[in-house]
Amino acid sequence: MSVLGGRTLDWLDDAIVMVDQTRLPASFDVIRIETVPELVGAIRRLSVRGAPAIGVAGAFGVALAARIHGVGNTAFDDAVQMVRMARPTAVNLARMVDRVAATAGGGPDVVLLEALAVRDEELAASESMGNDGAELVSELLGHGNPVRVLTICNTGGLASVERGTALAVVQALHELAALEEAIVLETRPLLQGARLTTWELQRMGAPNRLVVDAAGPYLLSRGVADVVLTGADRIAANGDTANKIGTFSLALAAQHAAVPFVVVAPESTVDMATATGDDIEIEYRNGGEVVGHRGNQPGVRCHPGWTDHGDRHG
Amino acid sequence: MSVLGGRTLDWLDDAIVMVDQTRLPASFDVIRIETVPELVGAIRRLSVRGAPAIGVAGAFGVALAARIHGVGNTAFDDAVQMVRMARPTAVNLARMVDRVAATAGGGPDVVLLEALAVRDEELAASESMGNDGAELVSELLGHGNPVRVLTICNTGGLASVERGTALAVVQALHELAALEEAIVLETRPLLQGARLTTWELQRMGAPNRLVVDAAGPYLLSRGVADVVLTGADRIAANGDTANKIGTFSLALAAQHAAVPFVVVAPESTVDMATATGDDIEIEYRNGGEVVGHRGNQPGVRCHPGWTDHGDRHG
Repeated sequence: MSVLGGRTLDWLDDAIVMVDQTRLPASFDVIRIETVPELVGAIRRLSVRGAPAIGVAGAFGVALAARIHGVGNTAFDDAVQMVRMARPTAVNLARMVDRVAATAGGGPDVVLLEALAVRDEELAASESMGNDGAELVSELLGHGNPVRVLTICNTGGLASVERGTALAVVQALHELAALEEAIVLETRPLLQGARLTTWELQRMGAPNRLVVDAAGPYLLSRGVADVVLTGADRIAANGDTANKIGTFSLALAAQHAAVPFVVVAPESTVDMATATGDDIEIEYRNGGEVVGHRGNQPGVRCHPGWTDHGDRHG
Repeated sequence: MSVLGGRTLDWLDDAIVMVDQTRLPASFDVIRIETVPELVGAIRRLSVRGAPAIGVAGAFGVALAARIHGVGNTAFDDAVQMVRMARPTAVNLARMVDRVAATAGGGPDVVLLEALAVRDEELAASESMGNDGAELVSELLGHGNPVRVLTICNTGGLASVERGTALAVVQALHELAALEEAIVLETRPLLQGARLTTWELQRMGAPNRLVVDAAGPYLLSRGVADVVLTGADRIAANGDTANKIGTFSLALAAQHAAVPFVVVAPESTVDMATATGDDIEIEYRNGGEVVGHRGNQPGVRCHPGWTDHGDRHG
């Protein structure tokens, strides 16, 4: 472990400390961030990623700005705006920056307390998602046998502050000695399951196996997993869920195999302003990530479509 | 083009010539094979792969042995056995070697004629699979619009001698100006779709796009393809079909989206001795192909499961 304990992001001695996710799994580096430009750079290069984690990083960024510049001056206001715009599409970032900046009238110490409250609420949310999810899984399965979980993408502490969403449920099951193993899909883009989720499972000592994305539906049909646990990018008002590419085919296969499919997400991921999955804008990645993958042929055109809709079950 | 024309494997001037598939797509190398040990090496290192192609290569190997050693002697018999055992699990190889070796009594010229007959039957089979398949696709779709095909793995001339199975249908559609585009899954293991199928489609000038494996089912649900065309490793007596990992989830998604799912294979792929898909032995690849893939974490365990069952539709 490190100064972070089980956390992947925290406030320590007037600075932000975080695991540099761009270096994982080859290297576990904790970086210390003492200025706002350093934080903006870390967010932009995805050293910290995952909506809840970015929200907490943004809250800490406002606290950092207040300690450096004081409050009620242009330097503070400019620094807050820089943090807020580091990733324009991340709604959690703007939301948490605004919430903490609204307390600036109370001075730097009050700002820091609000930022720490954002962190603590995130920790509490992960804790209860893990416990409630573990309870739900036991209810759904209706037996006391160790559970075999299939999961996609990275939904652990790296995407929040500690424990995470779907992986928080896996961790709770593991702590209750109720986990037989977690089967992890590699997960495109960037192999986030292979790179980050297996790293987190090994860190918590949970049995795990890695499979190629296309194997997930087949393994469900062969009875290899008892439950599918996934996170969510966004959940529409009708329950339609957008999540990493491959989630849709897992949902279909889970339905076919009568395996419970559970989406684990905080309330902030439910967007009541979005009626259905058809209204969710899908993020397309650069085709070079596919065309340039290993020995692929130069000049091949790529179809965008990394992210998809997973129907919500269970 | 090369000495091979559109073929990927042939008999030329007392030797076997073939595209070295291990070099594709980076390099298009035609290798000339004049001895039996050279052929055995080429089969073992997968310079030639795909059940029909291996069968033809084996037939040519017997002709090569007869030209070098004559027939009715130990050197010929030993050479035939070497070819026959180059890939013990490839049933086409043993079958075609035995068929051609059975003509040895007629002398080297008769042996060569039989080997050329094996090649010609393979060419004719691909030709009719392509034409019949294109006709079937038109019937299934019931409209004259250009067809958008989704396909997996490599099922083209590289896997046979020319044209192939599922990709022969794509080629026939393209030649009839009835192809809008072929959407190709990367296909694990070894990215055979990305490496070989896109190369074959570009060679025939057919519009194509490459997608990650996990995107296939999602794209079907979004109406991006009109038909799924796949080859088969083996088809059981009840029609259950084993094919490359990811085929099962495509079949499920095609059913969900009411998109026709067509398995294109020669009669030799139907194994009446295998009752159902459950009786088909699944080939598992070495876990190192997953664990060692790009930045994956050392020490991660892999779940075997590259190949799967795809239900037969349409």
